[in-house]
Amino acid sequence: MANADCVSVRVFSLNCWGIHYLSKHCSQRYQMIGEMLCKEQHDIVLLQEVWSEKDFLYLKVKLASTHPHSHYFKSGVIGSGLAIFAKHRIHDTFLYRYSLNGYPYMAHHGDWFGGKAVGMAILNIAGLTANVYVTHLHAEYSREKDSYLSHRVVQAWELQQFIRHTSTGADVVIVGGDLNMHPQDLGCRLLMSYTGLKDSYIETAKFDGCENGMTLIADNLFISKNELIPFEKGIRIDYILFKGSSTTKIYCDFMSTTKGSVPGHPLPYSDHEALTAELRLESHIPAQAGSGKTHDTPAEKLAELVDTLTEARTEVKVGLHCAERMRYTAARTGVMGLALLVLELAIAAVPCFALGAEQPFPRISFYLLAALCFAILLTTFLLYIFYTMELKSLQGAEDQMRLAVGSLQEKLRGFPVAQPNDAPQRSPEGQQPSALDPEE
Amino acid sequence: MANADCVSVRVFSLNCWGIHYLSKHCSQRYQMIGEMLCKEQHDIVLLQEVWSEKDFLYLKVKLASTHPHSHYFKSGVIGSGLAIFAKHRIHDTFLYRYSLNGYPYMAHHGDWFGGKAVGMAILNIAGLTANVYVTHLHAEYSREKDSYLSHRVVQAWELQQFIRHTSTGADVVIVGGDLNMHPQDLGCRLLMSYTGLKDSYIETAKFDGCENGMTLIADNLFISKNELIPFEKGIRIDYILFKGSSTTKIYCDFMSTTKGSVPGHPLPYSDHEALTAELRLESHIPAQAGSGKTHDTPAEKLAELVDTLTEARTEVKVGLHCAERMRYTAARTGVMGLALLVLELAIAAVPCFALGAEQPFPRISFYLLAALCFAILLTTFLLYIFYTMELKSLQGAEDQMRLAVGSLQEKLRGFPVAQPNDAPQRSPEGQQPSALDPEE
Repeated sequence: MANADCVSVRVFSLNCWGIHYLSKHCSQRYQMIGEMLCKEQHDIVLLQEVWSEKDFLYLKVKLASTHPHSHYFKSGVIGSGLAIFAKHRIHDTFLYRYSLNGYPYMAHHGDWFGGKAVGMAILNIAGLTANVYVTHLHAEYSREKDSYLSHRVVQAWELQQFIRHTSTGADVVIVGGDLNMHPQDLGCRLLMSYTGLKDSYIETAKFDGCENGMTLIADNLFISKNELIPFEKGIRIDYILFKGSSTTKIYCDFMSTTKGSVPGHPLPYSDHEALTAELRLESHIPAQAGSGKTHDTPAEKLAELVDTLTEARTEVKVGLHCAERMRYTAARTGVMGLALLVLELAIAAVPCFALGAEQPFPRISFYLLAALCFAILLTTFLLYIFYTMELKSLQGAEDQMRLAVGSLQEKLRGFPVAQPNDAPQRSPEGQQPSALDPEE
Repeated sequence: MANADCVSVRVFSLNCWGIHYLSKHCSQRYQMIGEMLCKEQHDIVLLQEVWSEKDFLYLKVKLASTHPHSHYFKSGVIGSGLAIFAKHRIHDTFLYRYSLNGYPYMAHHGDWFGGKAVGMAILNIAGLTANVYVTHLHAEYSREKDSYLSHRVVQAWELQQFIRHTSTGADVVIVGGDLNMHPQDLGCRLLMSYTGLKDSYIETAKFDGCENGMTLIADNLFISKNELIPFEKGIRIDYILFKGSSTTKIYCDFMSTTKGSVPGHPLPYSDHEALTAELRLESHIPAQAGSGKTHDTPAEKLAELVDTLTEARTEVKVGLHCAERMRYTAARTGVMGLALLVLELAIAAVPCFALGAEQPFPRISFYLLAALCFAILLTTFLLYIFYTMELKSLQGAEDQMRLAVGSLQEKLRGFPVAQPNDAPQRSPEGQQPSALDPEE
């Protein structure tokens, strides 16, 4: 590995709000974004909500000389909306689609159709391997009654799994995106504590931007103040996170956000504020015996992680019960539709049940009712399948979390994990005998 | 890392064919499987098509003393069917759901509902980190007219991505499962050449089992010979693959397969044959400067990989055109349904278009026709969405493959990849200017 002393890397992240015909001044804003990126020449540009590939291609052409390397991540019905532009060569990419992402019939929220995901790009920066991630989690439409919370927690869980498992060989890890979570939200804590990622807003030596690093602010003219209630001035839901390795240290020297409308323009770049972080990488020749596979976590950090995980499990279980209830409702409605259909057919087929001979058979009502029954059956069937998928994903995440908690608790107890053969009878599941029981 | 000289690891893999009410003698076979596993005491047991969680729990109880650690991977509508049992502690798990997996309306094939995936479990074997993967790819229902080929190639692509990116920190990689591909099939070559995984049947010092290592044989009483045409005796589609690292060497000393019916029983364990590989791990203190991140690939291997990738891209493009055509057909049918509905409504609404006054308005036909139109619109709408998702995934895979080919070709040319700043104008996409154009 090259002994690259103090490499500076400027990272940019923005949720572009690129819904044509729905987002305001979309083309004009992309033009502004393109011009700014050309001028600023960040090393890495991480964009979210670039819903139209045409806009990506527009930027690609515009940034051809400053950012020759780019990737657009495709997924779901509309796309993931994720894009990366880089000055440095992108060596490899990989996309992980979150297993849960809202509901297709909540079309006005649209998240399901977006196929939310996390995209990874492996870059080589001055001889160092940098794993760069861009992501966008499910939106929070109501903070008081957040029906997507369990989905977002599972997304955060999968995000940390993906980052942790794929970044083992990296010298530097950089994550940018719209997490749709406040800094203290469960998903955020899960992500940060499990991966060891650091928040550039917290770590930066110097900051210039909105109060408290907010990225969705009342002063942005695309934001209606009602949306932000109960947060008067705004919230912080966009992040640039980073992590070094045993061979490379990473620091944030400066961080900034935009503050609503762009100086010299009547408009902001988006309804979100843009983030820029100036990171400094210091590469060292490995001195310690640390394998670099896991960051050596002290006991209090481990205990904190166990708590966070336990909380996350509870949240997932709430979502699980919810999905179970919804599936049960769908099944019950389906059975009712079926019973109605059978009853109707019986009336039509068996003459003794028929109306008096003096009344004509009400054919139109008959057909309409039958159509209604079929519609109920079809809908409930599709819903049943969907909720089953949701249940599976929730259960899967819960299982993995339980396993992780078991592993962490064993570590905490100071048990010798390296010699499993000495204690073949001890099972992590053994501590919770009925934990795999789906009825739990 | 412990200097663990010559650790022996016995790995077992079986597609259990566990479809209750459809698979023959399901419960009886699970009983046989459980007893055999209890007796044989393999270190790692990788099972596929364990569709019912009840069967997994049955085995879990049965193997509680021999294999205290286990995990069942949940996904899709029915489940992934993947399960792992281990003597050694499972430290972490992660599931990657393939983005493409057949069609929901091909219900008789059922793959879509299974939510095919690759499951990973991180084990600690005598101080060594072993990344163990279990997977099951989409079935091949007809070799001549394989309508799922592009799906299976994308699955193999995602499988290699997942293994490669998540196994960087592993000392040993072990993969077992039903790949539904012959050894020379594109997907298999893609997987093997990209990851550097080795086939235990090819590598083994000693073999005992079916001719040519076949795992789906004519002598199995659950197999009808018609299914195997044109392969008279059988095919090899199940595998145990492995790979060491810069610190650990891995060898296969012995490999075996079952040969149809089990001695002493009237039945085989499944319609597939079971595989057992005896692997030997030799751990060394790292001597070379090799970072262990990438296996040092000679030029001819690289060239072979480029060829395989190019072939895979072509296959994906074929699938892409297919999906585009299907989506176009769905859209056209939808438009026809809409036109029919508009015409019908016009006839009903505008009196001058109506039938002569002497004829009564044909109400029943009107309602039936309207219902038909709505059914057409709904179906084509759902299909359109589905094909769009398929297109996105195919395009995504194609993009990533193109990027990978570009990166490999640059390596082959001997360009200095470590200094991308020296040549910021050179883009991998630059070689194929219109490659990102979706119309290509």
